[in-house]
Amino acid sequence: MDRALEFELIKDMGEERYNHTLRVIETALELGRIYKADLEKVKEAALFHDCAKFQGQINWLKMAEDFDIILDTYMEYNQDLIHAPLGAKIARVKYKIEDEEVLDAIYYHTTGRENMTILDKIIYIADYIEPGRNFPGLDEIRKEVFTNLDKGILLAMDNTIKFLVDKNKVIHPNSLKARNFLLMELNPRIR
Amino acid sequence: MDRALEFELIKDMGEERYNHTLRVIETALELGRIYKADLEKVKEAALFHDCAKFQGQINWLKMAEDFDIILDTYMEYNQDLIHAPLGAKIARVKYKIEDEEVLDAIYYHTTGRENMTILDKIIYIADYIEPGRNFPGLDEIRKEVFTNLDKGILLAMDNTIKFLVDKNKVIHPNSLKARNFLLMELNPRIR
Repeated sequence: MDRALEFELIKDMGEERYNHTLRVIETALELGRIYKADLEKVKEAALFHDCAKFQGQINWLKMAEDFDIILDTYMEYNQDLIHAPLGAKIARVKYKIEDEEVLDAIYYHTTGRENMTILDKIIYIADYIEPGRNFPGLDEIRKEVFTNLDKGILLAMDNTIKFLVDKNKVIHPNSLKARNFLLMELNPRIR
Repeated sequence: MDRALEFELIKDMGEERYNHTLRVIETALELGRIYKADLEKVKEAALFHDCAKFQGQINWLKMAEDFDIILDTYMEYNQDLIHAPLGAKIARVKYKIEDEEVLDAIYYHTTGRENMTILDKIIYIADYIEPGRNFPGLDEIRKEVFTNLDKGILLAMDNTIKFLVDKNKVIHPNSLKARNFLLMELNPRIR
């Protein structure tokens, strides 16, 4: 890892989140090898996926405005969602990432989207299952991810939807569309 | 009730579903009185809400084509969803209903939608809680509906989303949008 870059990321996100990032890189590379993804892109997307998660008190709305991010109603309401599209923008302007596939994987790493690329999928799920995570149902999801990536991601998305319902949180439409898309792809309709 | 109309509905949907319809009318009128809705419209929308649920083997795709219903991916996949928009069309062409509010309440009675009218809400939830229904969590929802309509509907929608996830069924985006809208309205964001 480039030391200046590492220093910059640690300065922005703090040591703890940087360690999470390192675990996401490791998990994502492991999945990238199994599912034959471009490992350079995997590493780049994983490294920058949380680059907008700045330490301390952040005015997310102002930050979004400064970086010209168009927020939908859900991002305005649940500002935790902003760091993903904002991260894609910061990766582009601050870290000079030009690969649109890498930027998309960062953009959609929290919600997913319909018809995800293999890179989208790996970043989404590596963030979800990296070894520092620990919550009910995770062991089953981890196991499935290494056997059948799509089935594992569907389990993770279903788990997230139920969690958000129970916590009285909004659910971004992209999360639902991503989940429905995988479900329909895995269970083609015959009638 | 007009006897000829009653006969026609029973012929189409069968006795059992017609009895469900009568219970929905009763529950909807009860809610209409409490929440000051137009009782004529409430009765009409409740009477026709399932008018497309024909008995026997139905080719839903052909039916949708015959009645010029535009189906989205979700309705093609889960054809149970078709009866609501199809019902609105049949109410219009066969039963000569012209009131757009009534037709909308029929159209959206299965999924809900963002920013539902009071009529939409009453038909949606009367169908959900009518006395013939019986499933886990229903008592709490019934109680809430008669105290705070929006909170009761949100509970019902949350329950439905979790049920559909557990049953591996697609969730229509309108269902999610309806739920998110109510949640955000009931819990305005202050940050």
